[in-house]
Amino acid sequence: MKGWQFTKTHEPLQLVELEDPKAAPGRVVIDTKAVGLCHSDVGSLEDEGWMALMDAPVIMGHENAGVISEVGEGVTDFKVGDRVAICPTGPSGTAPGYVYDGGFGTKIHAPAEDLVRVPDELSMEMAASATDAGMTSYSALFNVGQAKPGMNIALIGIGGLGQIALQAAIAKGIKNIYAADVSEKARELAKEIGAVEVVSDIKDLADKDLDLIVDYAGFGVTTSDALEVVKPGGTVVLVGMGKLETTINTTSFITGAKRLLANVGGTPQDIADIYELMAAGKLNPKLTKIKFEDIPEGIEKLKAGEVQGRLVAVYDGDE
Amino acid sequence: MKGWQFTKTHEPLQLVELEDPKAAPGRVVIDTKAVGLCHSDVGSLEDEGWMALMDAPVIMGHENAGVISEVGEGVTDFKVGDRVAICPTGPSGTAPGYVYDGGFGTKIHAPAEDLVRVPDELSMEMAASATDAGMTSYSALFNVGQAKPGMNIALIGIGGLGQIALQAAIAKGIKNIYAADVSEKARELAKEIGAVEVVSDIKDLADKDLDLIVDYAGFGVTTSDALEVVKPGGTVVLVGMGKLETTINTTSFITGAKRLLANVGGTPQDIADIYELMAAGKLNPKLTKIKFEDIPEGIEKLKAGEVQGRLVAVYDGDE
Repeated sequence: MKGWQFTKTHEPLQLVELEDPKAAPGRVVIDTKAVGLCHSDVGSLEDEGWMALMDAPVIMGHENAGVISEVGEGVTDFKVGDRVAICPTGPSGTAPGYVYDGGFGTKIHAPAEDLVRVPDELSMEMAASATDAGMTSYSALFNVGQAKPGMNIALIGIGGLGQIALQAAIAKGIKNIYAADVSEKARELAKEIGAVEVVSDIKDLADKDLDLIVDYAGFGVTTSDALEVVKPGGTVVLVGMGKLETTINTTSFITGAKRLLANVGGTPQDIADIYELMAAGKLNPKLTKIKFEDIPEGIEKLKAGEVQGRLVAVYDGDE
Repeated sequence: MKGWQFTKTHEPLQLVELEDPKAAPGRVVIDTKAVGLCHSDVGSLEDEGWMALMDAPVIMGHENAGVISEVGEGVTDFKVGDRVAICPTGPSGTAPGYVYDGGFGTKIHAPAEDLVRVPDELSMEMAASATDAGMTSYSALFNVGQAKPGMNIALIGIGGLGQIALQAAIAKGIKNIYAADVSEKARELAKEIGAVEVVSDIKDLADKDLDLIVDYAGFGVTTSDALEVVKPGGTVVLVGMGKLETTINTTSFITGAKRLLANVGGTPQDIADIYELMAAGKLNPKLTKIKFEDIPEGIEKLKAGEVQGRLVAVYDGDE
């Protein structure tokens, strides 16, 4: 097998040839078919803080989908030929691309407990893209935020994560879903997807009796304004890190018995839920496909902000 | 009956004579025996913001205990002669001293659903004092914070509320309970009550793997430091309003999937739990007793910060 290996911060990825993995008990070997490129990959290469999370040298890539080519002892839920994706925050507590070799390599030796079955209708690149941005936006809204039909909900920031959440909310029957974004383009997209009302400033939704606001932007003032606007007893879930601090008014927070929660990652079940929506045609994130050999260049493009939609490297089998 | 009536902000309480109430269906008449004086009573008299919460003119007093002298139609759980207190945030959604005449008067016409039985061992002044400060501190720790034995817990601010919470935590078998307070006197008290370790700055507890921090001080930096110090997945409950804003670091909040929650009031069950601890001698808040005619002077003393412990007016029956 070959792969793009991370050695340390500020060093370019190295193309390496390694021996093919053998499936250990409880694990499977996956032939990688698609891997998403993520802004956090840029982070790993640029910011030494990430070194603590990485068992370097390691082949990067944490948004993975592929086909099982070998099954280890004790694995009964999956067999050779199964199309699967890997939840990077799954029950094993180990993430591909950080702790073990990920999908920037042609084979992945993954714990069976972290696998999610990919429906036949779904392309491998769609499947891969759902495992991080999709899962995170979904989990913030439905797991942490406990979004349900009948609630009044607003999403702040209709970018990569926010638009998946908005599509998912509508697909799951949430009617009173509002959106706020400073960008006119994002507001147009939110209208197109089907938000009931779209505004530039969350404060314009103060009269909507909002039960839940998910802040996918996280620009400090978006969070503090959300806490002012959400109704007494309501919840704000903070996802975005647009700015690294927020100043909140504690009077309305306390007297309104409000809640500020955070989300990290998600579960294999979240990914499975997203696959169901994708397979039903209700969730269509924009993707840009590249090839295995383009991965380092793709990361440069991400860094430069030149990418539209999610960048996914797709393997045709003869890398 | 007579009572001290609030008419509007900046006006002194008026001593009024009113016709005795008759018990309406679902309600009881209580002969007031003890009523706590609260800092929010000072607020009502000084700050016009409170007018919106008050159905003026109204006799103030929201921390009440007394003896039932009449029972309305349909009330089956209580009878004449029962010793009871009133939960000011009970299921009726109406608070004595705000929406209907409270315990600064000699009789109270209260909804039966908000009543809590006072154990025989308990003095009326203890019973009254538990209905606001006691209930709030208890609810923040046990309802909102979900404190349980086995958890590592820190309390910030060992003042009126914090010391009740600390005593209650220890009484309920929580061993790993820490305290932080800037005041040396408060730290001594915390040690005396039995905190495992007492510090002046919550940051000194960063190595304690804290599951829960309740901030009874709420001085802005206490809350933001608590959010830094609490372990990943941990919860900070904000109760105190020492400062009306706090600036939090969203990086550690998000990556640590932390939670910031608020508490308002509590339930009749919280008050009943506190009575059990008081009756067992495990909870002994400091009280200062005054008489019915001293209520206006007591409020002036509260305003001037001259009160030690909770101020409770005790009625001997011939006010």
